[in-house]
Amino acid sequence: MNDQPGRLMQAEIAEQPAVLGRIATEAGPAIAEVSAVIAERRPRFVLLAARGSSDHAALYAKYLVEVRLGLPAGLVSPSSMTLYSARPDLRDVLFVAVSQSGASPDLVQSLTVAGECGAITVALTNTPSSQLAQAAEFSLDLRAGVEAAVAATKSYTAELLALYLLLAPLAGRSSPAKLADEAGTLADAAAATLGRDSEVLAAATRYRFADRLVTTARGFSYPTAREAALKLMETSYLGAQAFSGADLLHGPMAMIHAGLPVIAVVTAGPGGRAMVPVLDRLAERGADLVIVGGAAGPGQAALTLPDAVILPVVTAGVAEELYPVLEILPLQQFALSLALQRGANPDAPRGLSKVTRTC
Amino acid sequence: MNDQPGRLMQAEIAEQPAVLGRIATEAGPAIAEVSAVIAERRPRFVLLAARGSSDHAALYAKYLVEVRLGLPAGLVSPSSMTLYSARPDLRDVLFVAVSQSGASPDLVQSLTVAGECGAITVALTNTPSSQLAQAAEFSLDLRAGVEAAVAATKSYTAELLALYLLLAPLAGRSSPAKLADEAGTLADAAAATLGRDSEVLAAATRYRFADRLVTTARGFSYPTAREAALKLMETSYLGAQAFSGADLLHGPMAMIHAGLPVIAVVTAGPGGRAMVPVLDRLAERGADLVIVGGAAGPGQAALTLPDAVILPVVTAGVAEELYPVLEILPLQQFALSLALQRGANPDAPRGLSKVTRTC
Repeated sequence: MNDQPGRLMQAEIAEQPAVLGRIATEAGPAIAEVSAVIAERRPRFVLLAARGSSDHAALYAKYLVEVRLGLPAGLVSPSSMTLYSARPDLRDVLFVAVSQSGASPDLVQSLTVAGECGAITVALTNTPSSQLAQAAEFSLDLRAGVEAAVAATKSYTAELLALYLLLAPLAGRSSPAKLADEAGTLADAAAATLGRDSEVLAAATRYRFADRLVTTARGFSYPTAREAALKLMETSYLGAQAFSGADLLHGPMAMIHAGLPVIAVVTAGPGGRAMVPVLDRLAERGADLVIVGGAAGPGQAALTLPDAVILPVVTAGVAEELYPVLEILPLQQFALSLALQRGANPDAPRGLSKVTRTC
Repeated sequence: MNDQPGRLMQAEIAEQPAVLGRIATEAGPAIAEVSAVIAERRPRFVLLAARGSSDHAALYAKYLVEVRLGLPAGLVSPSSMTLYSARPDLRDVLFVAVSQSGASPDLVQSLTVAGECGAITVALTNTPSSQLAQAAEFSLDLRAGVEAAVAATKSYTAELLALYLLLAPLAGRSSPAKLADEAGTLADAAAATLGRDSEVLAAATRYRFADRLVTTARGFSYPTAREAALKLMETSYLGAQAFSGADLLHGPMAMIHAGLPVIAVVTAGPGGRAMVPVLDRLAERGADLVIVGGAAGPGQAALTLPDAVILPVVTAGVAEELYPVLEILPLQQFALSLALQRGANPDAPRGLSKVTRTC
């Protein structure tokens, strides 16, 4: 079946504009219904539980909850409930578990305990028959279609959009019609961003022999840095380290040496603007910079880093809160291209299987 | 002044048993008072805000809150309040900011906003005159003494113990006398662990030319893996990547190649036991293993990894929840020794200053 390395990952990357459109039309109504029920129950705290790529979607959701909903939020350490048998008081808590497969026992157990401890539980999975989906009070089906490559791509962007559709209405500022419009614009921007692949492939060649690299971003784009690092570890076996731009300054900056590749996500808005001092420090240290996006803010001149490689992101008409859906696209292409150049098969990386079960 | 590289860091590492004892006797009463006031106000959710090493102390506190207090908890993304001007509803929230210097503007602003939004705010700092301490409803002084080396050591273990003293009584199971006893036992165990330094120094030599490594642990020990990675990045300029043992299996395992150094923290208890399948996978992939602790559980045989280097941790009489205070000690010695062997000065790493200010 999978005769050509990377064939599956390539197909699933290309499918994303269609998947994003389908979520809005097919999964959207069910998500809106659950969102409305949750709104009535007025949760006061939000917990998110996930592993791997889905954990980066959960991190994105945490920013949405903090910024847009104005509620305190936390990423659950599943081991508290699995290894240490915690039974926390979760009344008034919305507990959202995110998982492509819905199969990891630690997530199933955490969500089950959360429900028993009083939380409203939501499972967002791509597998509605999964144990996780069955265990939840509300189960949402991503409808991203079967994902066959081990490295998650379309399920990740589908999770981001689904979480946006679930959470944005809780802030009371988004009608279903507006959300559908936003999703349509997003799908178009995703297609346009993926169409810039020749620039990405040219850039990837430069890193053929890199052994390690750093990814960095701030705010809504920080999950993109995390997911990009994971994608590069999984597919290209690089030692890829992700840091928030602020955390990078609190210590790890010391290990940045001249020539170390650093991928910085810098799209328009507060997160991108806050990266400017970080880029200055990285440039001082002689890092080899790749900039995803390249706009530090509306009305601001393009970044003056003449040696930096730019991976373009087409964001026309899209709200900043949805940029992460677009930012990851060139990085998926970058990881795929690099893996193939290095002789790895990103559809079936060494040491991994599609479904990981941890306790 | 600082004629000999690493002199400050070495002195501050050695000072830790005395600092731990001093916290119990000098800072303990004030911490107990604040703890009692917080208990009366019955917070329902705990948020923690920190950067760098203190962020790992905050992660430790998150496990304590989830497991011991049975409350939902989250690590704040400061950018939500600073870059995106979020004004969340924080009634019934305990907001704890942790910082050696108390000087980083993002923490000061986050804590200030948290207080305005209804949270009980606590600042735990080593600098009672700091802006952070001034901004908090309750300010707790670590009394760790001036920390001069850029790489935090004694302030980190002091933060861990102070957070334990603050949070454990909220679970209603710790009298002041019992806590003082525990702290005394802990200080003795710290001295005994530091006394095993000849084994640590011999181990460090092996990694003289390593360019990258991985640290891993689960549960209460996971913050140790994170802090060890930061210490190695700061002092020895290694690309050190920290993963929870479970997260390692969800993707990053693919990049583990034969001979890659992996430091696993495996002390007695649920966290250590859960590392056994992770160690099996690492051994399969041929990783070069360093085991901190080396006991996977009470009554369990020593790990049968004949090639693994062991860094001993003396835990006699200490509660598992306080093991992180001990586990980091040989790793601090390891980082110091490695830095000196590599010709770096861990007292003043390149590209860093003692106080980092991010917005």
